[in-house]
Amino acid sequence: MTQRQNLRIPGPTPVPDDILQAVAHPMVNHRGKEFAGVLERTAAKLKDFFLTKHDVLMLSTSGTGGLEAAVVNTLSPGDAVLGVSIGAFGDRFAQIAEAYGADVIPLSYEWGQAARADDIREALKEHPDVRAVLVTHNETSTGVTNPLEEIAAAVRETDKLLLVDAISSLGAVPFDMDGWGLDVVVTGSQKGWMVPPGLAFLALSERGWKAYESSTMPRFYFDAGRHRDALAKGQTPWTPTMSIFFGLDLALERMAEEGLERIHTRHARMGRLTREGVKSLGLDLLCRDEQYASDTVTAVKAPEGIDVGAVRKVMEDEHDTVLAGGQARLQGKIFRIGHLGVVDEPDIRACLDALAQTLTRLGYKLPAVR
Amino acid sequence: MTQRQNLRIPGPTPVPDDILQAVAHPMVNHRGKEFAGVLERTAAKLKDFFLTKHDVLMLSTSGTGGLEAAVVNTLSPGDAVLGVSIGAFGDRFAQIAEAYGADVIPLSYEWGQAARADDIREALKEHPDVRAVLVTHNETSTGVTNPLEEIAAAVRETDKLLLVDAISSLGAVPFDMDGWGLDVVVTGSQKGWMVPPGLAFLALSERGWKAYESSTMPRFYFDAGRHRDALAKGQTPWTPTMSIFFGLDLALERMAEEGLERIHTRHARMGRLTREGVKSLGLDLLCRDEQYASDTVTAVKAPEGIDVGAVRKVMEDEHDTVLAGGQARLQGKIFRIGHLGVVDEPDIRACLDALAQTLTRLGYKLPAVR
Repeated sequence: MTQRQNLRIPGPTPVPDDILQAVAHPMVNHRGKEFAGVLERTAAKLKDFFLTKHDVLMLSTSGTGGLEAAVVNTLSPGDAVLGVSIGAFGDRFAQIAEAYGADVIPLSYEWGQAARADDIREALKEHPDVRAVLVTHNETSTGVTNPLEEIAAAVRETDKLLLVDAISSLGAVPFDMDGWGLDVVVTGSQKGWMVPPGLAFLALSERGWKAYESSTMPRFYFDAGRHRDALAKGQTPWTPTMSIFFGLDLALERMAEEGLERIHTRHARMGRLTREGVKSLGLDLLCRDEQYASDTVTAVKAPEGIDVGAVRKVMEDEHDTVLAGGQARLQGKIFRIGHLGVVDEPDIRACLDALAQTLTRLGYKLPAVR
Repeated sequence: MTQRQNLRIPGPTPVPDDILQAVAHPMVNHRGKEFAGVLERTAAKLKDFFLTKHDVLMLSTSGTGGLEAAVVNTLSPGDAVLGVSIGAFGDRFAQIAEAYGADVIPLSYEWGQAARADDIREALKEHPDVRAVLVTHNETSTGVTNPLEEIAAAVRETDKLLLVDAISSLGAVPFDMDGWGLDVVVTGSQKGWMVPPGLAFLALSERGWKAYESSTMPRFYFDAGRHRDALAKGQTPWTPTMSIFFGLDLALERMAEEGLERIHTRHARMGRLTREGVKSLGLDLLCRDEQYASDTVTAVKAPEGIDVGAVRKVMEDEHDTVLAGGQARLQGKIFRIGHLGVVDEPDIRACLDALAQTLTRLGYKLPAVR
């Protein structure tokens, strides 16, 4: 079976056929030599994308599970944390910390905006007891990328921990864990990595591991120390989701062949192409400032009188193209186009053409000059 | 690629080729109609194996994650629980409860023995403050199956919760969640279900859901209520490990075709065949009482002077047959033969033949008459 749809949601992203075939690898002993090789290779290659010298742990869970791992491995109940949120996933990160007893001080922005490093600098001065800052690199729900390097610089003026949700950014857009001084970084397999959902990747800085030692939030399945110790022996502490690892092994090889820089350039080009295409149809982006527009997902405001559900239905039924809707308070107000992972110009052009036809069919009047 | 090995470990178990091909299904929208169908079908079919009228929730995690879900969804820090343990996985269940602040009263048996219902009855009288009993149905580390129906009857004389690790039993040997009065049941995809690791299945009784409402252990990713509410809408709360679900959809269809009773009879036959074969080689089983011998995994004591590592290496290198070693205190003392999931007589006979040749090659003297 081949990918028949133009799957333009921000994850799960399309998986190339040969990687799907790798996913179909027969079962082997998860404690044996062959699988140890898979774990060692993938863990080593992931470091080249995180740009870290620290271990990248591979957890059999979704991105949300990865965020939970970030929280429970470094914080303690009662810790004050600054929860920077520019959308649904920023909110979720804060909710997880709250569920485990952290005292979350929210720093929330209107959905569609990016966070400002200066605001975080101010907030940390105002709340000197804050122990950690939670921030989303790329907010999948709004199509906005936070200026993470600037934010990290602000946090690095203090001794606070910086926990980063890089689920829909890492592997697709520029990222530098060690260079920017990030303490905990999480990403997920079904985004930029060309593999199906099922794995979250987690790395901790030296400061992060120090926090791990004194952190008292309860944890077992997500325990980073157990994953680190097992990885050193070519294992995982619990039975891993092996199929996705087999796919990842091949996917990372492909990504290394393309190279970090070319992957980033391609995503930047896809982002621009999508935004320009959408604007040429007379549509508005949710992200107001091109500087912070995401190169992995674009959120488009539904034009007056056009129903988002109808747009998505016609796109899917008549053009085999799947878009995402809006989440939470943006439901019915936007649709989203994913452009991360395996994506190139023809995919985006086909999507934009289909969108033009769909909108016309639904009574929307395209601008005369496009 | 086809399963080339005789994978005789107690999970991951071999996955038939057509199910592996289903695992390689292209990505689709995890919130779309096609995937909702997969979720609805698999959730419905699983009930027929649990023998429950309650929802069977499907969590993207390993069996250990499933055990954590059982604990955090029904207990509160400070709760006294009776941790019945007959091996490594009974110990793990108790460790998870402890990690989340439960006060575990251990009821431990020598490894190789089964738990006795009367002991549990006594312990509950002695500790009337106990809120829940944790028990392993089939102990994968020792090849012993606890008399779960009897144990459940003892617990049902009280109002205590009964949390059951059915990871390596359910789907393979007789099990009756509602009939036996079990409150929380956990199993894992890579055991009896013919699919790769990656999913845990969790069901709660009415008493279990009542406990959920008042339970205060922290939880987010494993929150059963969020899974239940999402399932009612044909969704999962977080991005699911879709590939394994596609495989499960086909696997459960196959299992329904074979039928519960025939599956159980086949496993009983494989268990007997393995034990008789092993004994005919002059080897001793770790499980002393045939009545409690597991029909999904057999633990064999290494004969005097024969190294377990060497046995496993020769089996794998020269006979393409993979056995499991001993865990924790049994390391180096036993090896284990898995016989659950897709397994029939030729697999077991091939394994026993290879074992006879391997032992001979390592200097073991087979009995004259076999």
